[in-house]
Amino acid sequence: MPEQPKVRIWIKLELAGKGEIGPGKITLLRRIGEHGSISAAARSMDMSYRRAWQLVNELNHLVDVPLVETHVGGSSRGGARLTVLGKCITDRYEAIAQRSTTACRELLTSFLPDDD
Amino acid sequence: MPEQPKVRIWIKLELAGKGEIGPGKITLLRRIGEHGSISAAARSMDMSYRRAWQLVNELNHLVDVPLVETHVGGSSRGGARLTVLGKCITDRYEAIAQRSTTACRELLTSFLPDDD
Repeated sequence: MPEQPKVRIWIKLELAGKGEIGPGKITLLRRIGEHGSISAAARSMDMSYRRAWQLVNELNHLVDVPLVETHVGGSSRGGARLTVLGKCITDRYEAIAQRSTTACRELLTSFLPDDD
Repeated sequence: MPEQPKVRIWIKLELAGKGEIGPGKITLLRRIGEHGSISAAARSMDMSYRRAWQLVNELNHLVDVPLVETHVGGSSRGGARLTVLGKCITDRYEAIAQRSTTACRELLTSFLPDDD
């Protein structure tokens, strides 16, 4: 069987004068949602804690509502989670990228020979 | 009215060991189709004729069927045109990119305030 054709999709959303969202920030958001912590998310991406905070700060000023909320103290060590908007943007961005990838893969396989 | 949010989509298709198709090659194909000539297409993109030929050569060896065919002599000065496969790939690549762009623009406007 021939190797599966590869498709790379890179999507950047630019909000005039406010900043942008691309694959890096989306991955950071996704990891924050998974790990419940900005530092753990950063570590999982080999990103510095400082850089991750910088990106979260940018993301939280893109629109009127923040995409990430942090909490400290209480019985747990504090952490971070996505807001409803943060989760919505992450999910929809990934869904769009996934649909494009699938469409491109179908396009490629449609004109490649069946066997190698 | 606030400025329309910008969306940039970059799609690269990689055919294992054979080469790849990205926005540059797709634009070249589109221009060849429009101008009926590789040199005119290259000129319209500020690309050297040599480079355009190189890319056409790559494109024509991606799959068993060429994407561009050239003809010389006769009553006209010769030229180039897309094969059915070349046109199909160009159209479908652009349709996929366009659909993604529209979906992303809708995503952006859905969470931006209505007025500035």
